[in-house]
Amino acid sequence: MLEHILGYRCVRCDAQLSGDLDDCGTCPDCGIDGILDVLYDYDRVRPTLTPEALSQRPRSLWRYEELLPVRALTGRPGTQPGMTPLIAAPRLAKHYGLRSVLLKDEGRGPTASFKDRASAIGVQKAQELGRERIACASTGNAATSLAGAAAAVGMPATIFVPKRAPVPKIAQLLVFGATVVKVLGSYDDAYELCQAACERFGWYNRNCAVNPYLVEGKKTCGLEIGEILGQDMPDWVAISVGDGCTVAGLWKGLDEMAQLGFAQKRPRILAVQAEGSCPIADAFDANKDLVPGGVDTLADSIAVSHPRNWRKAVAAVRASGGAFIRVRDEDILKRPGEVVQALEGLGCLGIVTAEVLKQ
Amino acid sequence: MLEHILGYRCVRCDAQLSGDLDDCGTCPDCGIDGILDVLYDYDRVRPTLTPEALSQRPRSLWRYEELLPVRALTGRPGTQPGMTPLIAAPRLAKHYGLRSVLLKDEGRGPTASFKDRASAIGVQKAQELGRERIACASTGNAATSLAGAAAAVGMPATIFVPKRAPVPKIAQLLVFGATVVKVLGSYDDAYELCQAACERFGWYNRNCAVNPYLVEGKKTCGLEIGEILGQDMPDWVAISVGDGCTVAGLWKGLDEMAQLGFAQKRPRILAVQAEGSCPIADAFDANKDLVPGGVDTLADSIAVSHPRNWRKAVAAVRASGGAFIRVRDEDILKRPGEVVQALEGLGCLGIVTAEVLKQ
Repeated sequence: MLEHILGYRCVRCDAQLSGDLDDCGTCPDCGIDGILDVLYDYDRVRPTLTPEALSQRPRSLWRYEELLPVRALTGRPGTQPGMTPLIAAPRLAKHYGLRSVLLKDEGRGPTASFKDRASAIGVQKAQELGRERIACASTGNAATSLAGAAAAVGMPATIFVPKRAPVPKIAQLLVFGATVVKVLGSYDDAYELCQAACERFGWYNRNCAVNPYLVEGKKTCGLEIGEILGQDMPDWVAISVGDGCTVAGLWKGLDEMAQLGFAQKRPRILAVQAEGSCPIADAFDANKDLVPGGVDTLADSIAVSHPRNWRKAVAAVRASGGAFIRVRDEDILKRPGEVVQALEGLGCLGIVTAEVLKQ
Repeated sequence: MLEHILGYRCVRCDAQLSGDLDDCGTCPDCGIDGILDVLYDYDRVRPTLTPEALSQRPRSLWRYEELLPVRALTGRPGTQPGMTPLIAAPRLAKHYGLRSVLLKDEGRGPTASFKDRASAIGVQKAQELGRERIACASTGNAATSLAGAAAAVGMPATIFVPKRAPVPKIAQLLVFGATVVKVLGSYDDAYELCQAACERFGWYNRNCAVNPYLVEGKKTCGLEIGEILGQDMPDWVAISVGDGCTVAGLWKGLDEMAQLGFAQKRPRILAVQAEGSCPIADAFDANKDLVPGGVDTLADSIAVSHPRNWRKAVAAVRASGGAFIRVRDEDILKRPGEVVQALEGLGCLGIVTAEVLKQ
């Protein structure tokens, strides 16, 4: 186990584990529902992760090496994800009656999505474990980011795509030199074939929603917000929620930067689900276990019937003193003019510094 | 005229002008061939553009305000283009027998292209001149970057596209809220209609290849290389050449950073044209005026029959002690494995630190 990591905590039963995990390590008592959270030794982190130290480090997510579940390396290879800009949106703020709105432009990653943060950790972990190939089942941003991150360090990648995957998305993967396996079936069939291939051939499975490491990559977005806005933290951070990994990672990063003294406060999380697919919002509001729900929304990237990481998501929003909201498709389409169109087109997360948050 | 600007020099007859220019200001004696170069008062720039000052400035191209042909503003609005990462490519270096290769990932701009640098200056200039709308004729990166940069500051934009413009490229423009005018004709027809509309309605024309300001935006890529690698400058910077603006801007930035003491030397420029469209390379090698040539290459983004900015391009490569090379389509397609595929996929400029450059 890495020396700056204390162990792992099960998000379901709170048990603590130590020692090395396998690819999709989960709690032995809780099985697939027992997703693990990586625990760091913050007393060990604090002396070396200082503002002075950070000022000398690379402008990528690797700057936070004491807070990542990977070995320290000299000269991180790869495409340097992270450190995306915070962009002021004064007209958007005015439109909603807010004092200030900042957008974290996650479209500025190496393959233009937030998933670059998770894929970088996945590829690094696969290298540490001596795996010869990394794989996932996806046709979206996860696949593209994995293909790019793997190619940039010379690791072969195999992407399993369902039969109906659009040709342009496959082309994107081929540009990065990935091996693309078109599965004559649905996304679920591709997922299962990927899982079977990883088990059979010893490939690293980046696909694993329960993998405790990938969310640590997503966490770096919160670390950056805490580092950059530490003395002027926003009141709220707004983020869309699908399977729950992203909001959980974001909160963990924000919380750690407060624990380590970089940020003078923790923002509240405004978690956004589509009204047609909001099982985590329902579990949060009812304070009960998640009930898988229907999927009826045009917001397809966050439409998840059975989100795996709902416990981490609910815990994150609760710990932040935040709230879930549900947005109707007609309101998603109703845009306050060209400004918002442009900003949405850039694929940003929203960071809101609000005196009063008008929903 | 801005106080840090001395005037303008004609790249054809060397005459110096002063005073304010109109949109596409060219030399009155040389007409359209007399493209102007902005002259800065480096003695005025030097005291304020220091490493200490830069360490406090925003991580975007606006950090170089003393070297830009726009008014200084507090709190630059917009999408913060520039400060793209330099990525080490050790396997690419090994493949070519080079000591070190760095890639400047220009795909990390707000709309994912180098053109974001020029469009930011164009929009700023249009605002300074009090124009109500900005326009261009294009279906490529220039159009997308303009639509994004304009939307981010709330300036209306009109993009003229030829009849055969692909629907996905038009969709990209509409996402940013641009008004798209589909012209029932060729690209040249769209270009001429754009020109006419700008003259009639007083819109700012970002389309103007002879505009002396846009190239100053492209220059910031060279400024960044000089700032970041100043004490360890590469021997060569490799860049593809179409109409000549980009290579000219890049060199100007590299040269300025050497003049201002940031960079300890100036790299040589390796200017790359496609063999099927290489009129600037021909003019350079023959040391004669440019002869417009045929266009027969799959490298369509740099296939320009009559490049407007050939004089600036030739002068830049000559001043650097550099060279032009021509690349055959079959060699463009011949890729040394997945590594290069991946790196090309990321849309990088190449920066080479070579002991021996093997072409």
